[in-house]
Amino acid sequence: MTGFGDRLLAALDQRLPLCVGIDPHPQLLEAWGLPQTPSGLRTFGEITVGAFGDQVAALKPQSAFFERFGAAGIGVLEDVVAGARAVGALVVLDAKRGDIGSTAAAYADAYLDPERALFCDALTVSPYLGFGSLQPFIERAGEVGSGLFVLARTSNSEGASVQAATGPEGLSTAQRIVDDAAAVNAALIADGQSFGSIGVVVGATVAPGSVELGRLRGPVLAPGIGAQGAGGAELRAVFGDLPGVLPTSSREILGAGPDHDALRAAAERTAATLRG
Amino acid sequence: MTGFGDRLLAALDQRLPLCVGIDPHPQLLEAWGLPQTPSGLRTFGEITVGAFGDQVAALKPQSAFFERFGAAGIGVLEDVVAGARAVGALVVLDAKRGDIGSTAAAYADAYLDPERALFCDALTVSPYLGFGSLQPFIERAGEVGSGLFVLARTSNSEGASVQAATGPEGLSTAQRIVDDAAAVNAALIADGQSFGSIGVVVGATVAPGSVELGRLRGPVLAPGIGAQGAGGAELRAVFGDLPGVLPTSSREILGAGPDHDALRAAAERTAATLRG
Repeated sequence: MTGFGDRLLAALDQRLPLCVGIDPHPQLLEAWGLPQTPSGLRTFGEITVGAFGDQVAALKPQSAFFERFGAAGIGVLEDVVAGARAVGALVVLDAKRGDIGSTAAAYADAYLDPERALFCDALTVSPYLGFGSLQPFIERAGEVGSGLFVLARTSNSEGASVQAATGPEGLSTAQRIVDDAAAVNAALIADGQSFGSIGVVVGATVAPGSVELGRLRGPVLAPGIGAQGAGGAELRAVFGDLPGVLPTSSREILGAGPDHDALRAAAERTAATLRG
Repeated sequence: MTGFGDRLLAALDQRLPLCVGIDPHPQLLEAWGLPQTPSGLRTFGEITVGAFGDQVAALKPQSAFFERFGAAGIGVLEDVVAGARAVGALVVLDAKRGDIGSTAAAYADAYLDPERALFCDALTVSPYLGFGSLQPFIERAGEVGSGLFVLARTSNSEGASVQAATGPEGLSTAQRIVDDAAAVNAALIADGQSFGSIGVVVGATVAPGSVELGRLRGPVLAPGIGAQGAGGAELRAVFGDLPGVLPTSSREILGAGPDHDALRAAAERTAATLRG
């Protein structure tokens, strides 16, 4: 079984090195002439998976926009996840889950069990309850070859109030998360993966040097591209030539829809900008 | 419209001052002779709402155990939430959601819109992206009379690594969250509520004095009761005679099931222990 980290490196090499968000915002549904219903959501999912599924390294459905429609929305999410995986895109489910003990294990059941409809290649998780609370996610991800993206230093300005706070050893909370992820990745690499599977989320818009990522040896999900202000120069300033950086963009690319060719062209344009 | 804080104070006065978790763990389903299916989940929900719905101040379904079953599980959660509200229990949906901007607004759509099936009296939210990122939740909760419980200082040992880190002004992350919630509550009280609606989660097992709650003037969700080790003495040591403290227990009470009378007796026993 090839771990998520290794599969991501291959996908970044073989496809457009980009993650496109599947974010069916109310405004986007309207702009695309789709109804604010599970059926509108379904069409949005079919269009985006159809446009990007064979083109980009990863697709990132945002759970919130499906949860808006309750059980019916989650039914659509199941089909979007399955559809994207069927055409070979890595699916990063953006759900920012986090909890402790058997509750964390239940979330792992939901998203990191190949028998479940919402099985994904990687899940975003939140470490407010401590990196150690993520252990059930980490164990399950390892068993099934999936990965995690742990929130570390995010692209929004409010994030610093929590993420830049300092622990007793003088490190920021964000740096401790990165270092804890690095330790898990070191074990995975010792165990035969060539690259770790426990990634972190670090915004492409943060001040360069906010976190030291050199020892991570795992994926980085980098939001903040396009509408939020970061381009190729910011990406290089923050991440240098770090391997496994997955820039993610939603609004700017989706804004070109719903036309199939226009969506693909927008993804190509964004990827070209990032190559710089 | 009566705000959540005021409704919680009334419920703590008129019902058993306790929140019971609706946590359909795999082990509990098995112990209760129920199948590991959405149908088993549904029976579990019917039994717990039937036993506690008219007895305790609040019921707290844990979203993870429903998400395990994908769309079908969320369909059951919709019925549990509606059933609990129909018999007058306050529903605290434990989902620990958190995100930024329009994504946070989409979560608010899902859980804080009276037209949606998962509308709840209060939602647990996670501030890893900064308290400021919760603004869309806060605004929506205010509009519909619901509340929030923001994770501050949780009952698990791993939590301190994030929650006890110190910001530039010398306060812990947990204390900043509490103080930020206090500021919102002060505005709600100035606006006519007698008690705030923006609560925090502080474990009944934390070291007394870990956070200063005196200015909060809003609800506190206090996990850690029973199986996790806290009783009446711990509750008083951590919270003193603070108003609006909602002790929450799951495993110890649910372990008495599935018999209806045994479940009710277990809730009464726990409440009596906490009165001390």
